[in-house]
Amino acid sequence: MALHKNHHANVVVIGGGTGTHTVLKGLKLYDWLNLTAIVSMADNGGSTGILRDELGVLPPGDIRQCLVALSESDQLMRDLFNYRFGTGQLKGHNFGNLFLSALEKVTSSFDQAVSKTSEVLKIKGRVVPVTLESTHLYGVLKNGKVLNGEHAVTTANLRGHDQINRVFLKPRVQASAKALAAIREANLIVVAPGTLYSSIIPIFLVNGIAKAIHNSKAKKIVVCNLMAKGIFTRGFSVDDFLKALEKYAGQNTFDYVIYNKRLPRSNLLKRYQHEGMPVAPPLFVKNKSRTFTKVQDKLRPIFIGGDLVARDPYRPNLNDPLKRQRTLIRHNPERLAKIIVDIIKREKRGYPR
Amino acid sequence: MALHKNHHANVVVIGGGTGTHTVLKGLKLYDWLNLTAIVSMADNGGSTGILRDELGVLPPGDIRQCLVALSESDQLMRDLFNYRFGTGQLKGHNFGNLFLSALEKVTSSFDQAVSKTSEVLKIKGRVVPVTLESTHLYGVLKNGKVLNGEHAVTTANLRGHDQINRVFLKPRVQASAKALAAIREANLIVVAPGTLYSSIIPIFLVNGIAKAIHNSKAKKIVVCNLMAKGIFTRGFSVDDFLKALEKYAGQNTFDYVIYNKRLPRSNLLKRYQHEGMPVAPPLFVKNKSRTFTKVQDKLRPIFIGGDLVARDPYRPNLNDPLKRQRTLIRHNPERLAKIIVDIIKREKRGYPR
Repeated sequence: MALHKNHHANVVVIGGGTGTHTVLKGLKLYDWLNLTAIVSMADNGGSTGILRDELGVLPPGDIRQCLVALSESDQLMRDLFNYRFGTGQLKGHNFGNLFLSALEKVTSSFDQAVSKTSEVLKIKGRVVPVTLESTHLYGVLKNGKVLNGEHAVTTANLRGHDQINRVFLKPRVQASAKALAAIREANLIVVAPGTLYSSIIPIFLVNGIAKAIHNSKAKKIVVCNLMAKGIFTRGFSVDDFLKALEKYAGQNTFDYVIYNKRLPRSNLLKRYQHEGMPVAPPLFVKNKSRTFTKVQDKLRPIFIGGDLVARDPYRPNLNDPLKRQRTLIRHNPERLAKIIVDIIKREKRGYPR
Repeated sequence: MALHKNHHANVVVIGGGTGTHTVLKGLKLYDWLNLTAIVSMADNGGSTGILRDELGVLPPGDIRQCLVALSESDQLMRDLFNYRFGTGQLKGHNFGNLFLSALEKVTSSFDQAVSKTSEVLKIKGRVVPVTLESTHLYGVLKNGKVLNGEHAVTTANLRGHDQINRVFLKPRVQASAKALAAIREANLIVVAPGTLYSSIIPIFLVNGIAKAIHNSKAKKIVVCNLMAKGIFTRGFSVDDFLKALEKYAGQNTFDYVIYNKRLPRSNLLKRYQHEGMPVAPPLFVKNKSRTFTKVQDKLRPIFIGGDLVARDPYRPNLNDPLKRQRTLIRHNPERLAKIIVDIIKREKRGYPR
């Protein structure tokens, strides 16, 4: 592993959306980590979808969430970038999305728009679109039905009546040079929690990404979701998630899987009764303790269980019609980051496996 | 006159819109000027009008133009704040307006929104709303017809068939504390060029402003418009503008009137053939030279004529449907600022009048 220096590590976080925001928010607290978020560009729902359709821009939503997570500007700027207009013709539009899209129109470059926004938000680290080419996600069900666009795949997760067969991007797009370079130079790659088929796997579908990750000398971590929601992943255990992901990322890609061992409180769980249930722990972990001295040595990947549910229930913004339907059970950013950082330290010490 | 220090002067610029932008842009070049723009809050047209109606915010458009004029951030940020969306449901909305309105919603304070935007745009000087209360402009024609809102007054200027009797604000609103303080501490007050009844006079209609300006020890300058457009000011001379303004500002308020002596080029003038004609020079100026040694001594105000038309014709942005109809004949910012600065220096030297 290429972790030579004592106080420096290149960490790449892969994802898009709330789960990625959580991982970044926690890792940001460690000054010696050099963070790069590589972000999905398949989003086509809500404010982002309207901007793509009407302005012909690349999807800003997931990028914006990561930028805000890494922002070191004051709370007001972060609130501004998360602000969603509530009335009139702007209703539903997120201000940060408009900022990125207007900059993309002014500069004719999404890459420059992200750079300038990074500067305005004073971000620690970098946010890198996985591709700078426009593409859309499609899903094919076992019955042959095609789901057209990320939003259709996501909502099918909530309401569908069939199993997913595969997802693909159309047109096929190339990974951005910055994304490939970040993966190449990474000491650690973290796959963030997120909607599996509409946020995480679309990153691995971009030409060059899965291979680059597989070939990277970095240690690779998957942070498993807390909840198994929707028809495509309902009832999934940690192993099931890993298996579904490895179908796209490649067998034996991952060195560690971080999962949650603790049941969320009943008032939170009840909100999910129509959507799904907590992800079940992996079947064959020899030792379920979260401490490193006790994790199993031989199996690959190493499964690390922890108490990862945020104690503070997420308070939805009741003025925000879009946020009301969003996930309430979240990872605790600090505790999750602690486990990731412990892995880095452990690998640095050359801890025997 | 309260100009004691050699290298410092508090200059207040009063207006809103393009003419104010031009004055500020020129004065910004003089480091020793401490600039405050006091801006009209009566605008209700275009993007600003929609935001007022739909979000219940105060009008951002004129404030935004002044902020951009005083911005010392890079060209990209200024371009972003002037960017107007061209398609879809955002069509016609100016990005800078959205920035101010979203901040107002997040902070529940227009004042804070202006402060934060000033910081983001790194402005030199200050931009101060003339009032922080919501109001609208009304115009009464000689035939009794009432024009409802700033936009109606402005477009009546272009298409109306009657003389204006008076304009008023409803509800009556109080001047902001910052505006009154800036006027009190001013060494020089400059009334910028602008649409007389819809941009300039509405500032004097705010409770407390006309009195504060009249009582201020500052020297007071009017920069007269280049063109007399629309039914309300068509055929106006410099004297006519002054007289109409003094009806609201008070008799003998002004010490200097700066006006243009040079005819614009015919290709520019032709664009105005259906709208109006150049403002005629004042009738009773004893000496028409623009140099200070030769201006008349006894009359008040002192009329200073200059060659003030910008040589570079203003290039309308043909992608911007709103800009195409805007003024093409503009003041040259540098030459206008030079005359204003010469007045300051002259007053500092105690030049005999």
